[in-house]
Amino acid sequence: MTMYEIIAKKRDQKQLSKEEIEYFIEEYTAGNIPDYQASALLMAVFLNGMDEEETFCLTDAMRRSGETADLSSIEGIKVDKHSTGGVGDKTTLIVAPIAAACGVPVAKMSGRGLGFTGGTVDKLEAIPGFRTALAPTEFLELVRRTGLSVIGQSAHIAAADKKLYAMRDVTATVDSIPLIASSIMSKKLASGSDAIVLDVKTGDGAFMERQEEAEALGRLMVRMGEAAGKRTIAVITDMNQPLGRAVGNSAEVIEAIDTLKGCGPEDITQLSLALAGMMICAGGKAQSLAEGERMAQEALQSGAALQKLSDFIAGQGGDCRILNDYSLLPQPACCRQVLSAADGFVRRIAAKSIGMASQHAGAGRATKEEKIDLSAGILLQRKVGDPVKKGEIIAEVFGNDPQKIETAAAEVEKAFEISEKQPEKIQLIKKVLAEQGIEAKNI
Amino acid sequence: MTMYEIIAKKRDQKQLSKEEIEYFIEEYTAGNIPDYQASALLMAVFLNGMDEEETFCLTDAMRRSGETADLSSIEGIKVDKHSTGGVGDKTTLIVAPIAAACGVPVAKMSGRGLGFTGGTVDKLEAIPGFRTALAPTEFLELVRRTGLSVIGQSAHIAAADKKLYAMRDVTATVDSIPLIASSIMSKKLASGSDAIVLDVKTGDGAFMERQEEAEALGRLMVRMGEAAGKRTIAVITDMNQPLGRAVGNSAEVIEAIDTLKGCGPEDITQLSLALAGMMICAGGKAQSLAEGERMAQEALQSGAALQKLSDFIAGQGGDCRILNDYSLLPQPACCRQVLSAADGFVRRIAAKSIGMASQHAGAGRATKEEKIDLSAGILLQRKVGDPVKKGEIIAEVFGNDPQKIETAAAEVEKAFEISEKQPEKIQLIKKVLAEQGIEAKNI
Repeated sequence: MTMYEIIAKKRDQKQLSKEEIEYFIEEYTAGNIPDYQASALLMAVFLNGMDEEETFCLTDAMRRSGETADLSSIEGIKVDKHSTGGVGDKTTLIVAPIAAACGVPVAKMSGRGLGFTGGTVDKLEAIPGFRTALAPTEFLELVRRTGLSVIGQSAHIAAADKKLYAMRDVTATVDSIPLIASSIMSKKLASGSDAIVLDVKTGDGAFMERQEEAEALGRLMVRMGEAAGKRTIAVITDMNQPLGRAVGNSAEVIEAIDTLKGCGPEDITQLSLALAGMMICAGGKAQSLAEGERMAQEALQSGAALQKLSDFIAGQGGDCRILNDYSLLPQPACCRQVLSAADGFVRRIAAKSIGMASQHAGAGRATKEEKIDLSAGILLQRKVGDPVKKGEIIAEVFGNDPQKIETAAAEVEKAFEISEKQPEKIQLIKKVLAEQGIEAKNI
Repeated sequence: MTMYEIIAKKRDQKQLSKEEIEYFIEEYTAGNIPDYQASALLMAVFLNGMDEEETFCLTDAMRRSGETADLSSIEGIKVDKHSTGGVGDKTTLIVAPIAAACGVPVAKMSGRGLGFTGGTVDKLEAIPGFRTALAPTEFLELVRRTGLSVIGQSAHIAAADKKLYAMRDVTATVDSIPLIASSIMSKKLASGSDAIVLDVKTGDGAFMERQEEAEALGRLMVRMGEAAGKRTIAVITDMNQPLGRAVGNSAEVIEAIDTLKGCGPEDITQLSLALAGMMICAGGKAQSLAEGERMAQEALQSGAALQKLSDFIAGQGGDCRILNDYSLLPQPACCRQVLSAADGFVRRIAAKSIGMASQHAGAGRATKEEKIDLSAGILLQRKVGDPVKKGEIIAEVFGNDPQKIETAAAEVEKAFEISEKQPEKIQLIKKVLAEQGIEAKNI
């Protein structure tokens, strides 16, 4: 068996065997296969695909390519949650405390933002004192004590993914369903949780622009999770406009707290309750998704979830006073208003453009090494469907670098589309996909 | 313009612009694009193809990536000849002297063998004293004086091809029509001849196993040559069995001399006369292919072509006595006979297997650095269609390493297929493709 033969086989649209896939992942991780052979194979996979059997094998080989976390010292059904990445998606900061408040232990690894999508770890680091680099023992101890901890994704988890993702990123082979599924699920399966809730984004600001593709990815990952013995639920959600109103690290922390106080934007509240309900159900604390969602609602209204967020922040060294004093979070030095150029209704807010504008304002990084401005970001004062008058503020762009703010503001202005007619409301939650007795529902 | 965007475009089946192709070739040759991006693009080209416009641009960019030879100091229409590579193909040693004897100057660069196909430069080096590394001035002077010189392919000609071919070789992206066409034609166009005759092999021992593919490649290269203002003729020929009886360096030199003496095998004689006729016609010394072939036949019968070979060998420092004393060529220490296992007729002699066996006997190299045994090779005592009796010698395998000979002999035995019924004769010359007033003929 040689790498040449493996490339030629996939090039010729043949199914790769378990042994061939394992050989590739093991030898590539060990540094015995050059990048140029890996990238040729990745392009062949991108163009000729992989069937479910191959994708399962690839995922399993990637899962075994690094360390696997052992969460068995934590009692209960541990539930992980993953989003395929969007703009303004701060749901982890909301749903993890809700689920934990309902008795579902959450021991989560999260990533940093790259390009136009944000990362939970960056957002958490906007909280003064918050530590995301914890020793495994401390991480486990926190989950046992408070029911919740979030740490930075270890490079040792699914080590092959780190190398492969870096290669896909520079060879235009990111947007491939088998490659996305194996990348996500290898890490999820190696992270040790017993159940997984997946938020698969679709639309302009998502990897999968078309809903059919997002559904195919979601279904595949549900089958992969179930095959690995983990209850898995996927939800297909809209990413044609940013989620909520805040984009940027400090701003998103504030919006998450607002949401846990019951005064968050409608869309982020709705999605957070749905996701938390799925986690509660997957964690065995509710018999149905509807019951899970009701419990999530109660945890929100009672303040139990907010309290859980407070415990979580305190547990990881953060300053809990931010919950009631947002001025303790990194503050931007300047702010620029974006005004509507016309009367009418907001027809579109291009999510990807807002994500890029937020990055250019300083909130995101183009390369892994770049430092970010935690105070930078965007607040959308209007969302799709809202009426607007010419000259009214539709968004605010802020951060510490006036020149960057100027550039970003121009981009934000372009991202808005104003029409005379009121557009149809965007359906946020499009579909829930699940197996093992949880009924999938079309919303 | 970034390499990422170029890869993504070809991945999405879009046509690359002249500027994009030039950017890729220039920056890759300069070492500014990493191999892993080049290989991802090569796989995308392999799977999604390139149209004629793209292939022309690629070829031209590759042609300009290195030095171009200036043959203008040689009078007359200089004609180059190229074979896409086969087993036992020693036609250059025969057709170049014939063409030169008919007044067509041949100033040719040739390559070394790799894998199961041989190279003219290796064959010439079997002649004691023969030098293939000549200074440009000496090369040009020889062509002016004797009408013929052959030197090793310079690494500076079409420099991009050297890097790209090395990459294609290890990423399973060799067998792609636009990539093969651009590789061959960029070198041919940079080598400075005024006309080109292309022998495109098809069958088991060729890159293009299927005749339709070989024809598509041939037609494309003819259009490319014509577009560059060079009269170009392509001939599609069979490579399902080795050409002639001899495979290996010394053995092929002997067979070439025999052919120029008028006592070569039928197939190699037929093809050599046809190719030489095309060169004579392309070189403007004959009005039609038929007339060119008649002139070639005369040069063979008169001994003029053999004399030209003698001048050629002497001109490049080789020992001309080999023409009449084959024992002056490298001699093998051992020889092993391969016997027929049954009565009947030879139904098939798998060309690729014979090529591999010859390589394993020592005549070829698996990697560019390997040293070869110039005495090693195979003589086929039977060809397809010949009757054979059980126990009769069908082939001889020879060389200096008894163990290698043993291995190779077993492979040669397997390459032969004996059947009870006499098979149909293999048609050697399948089609001639040309433009500009030379009528293509179906044979």
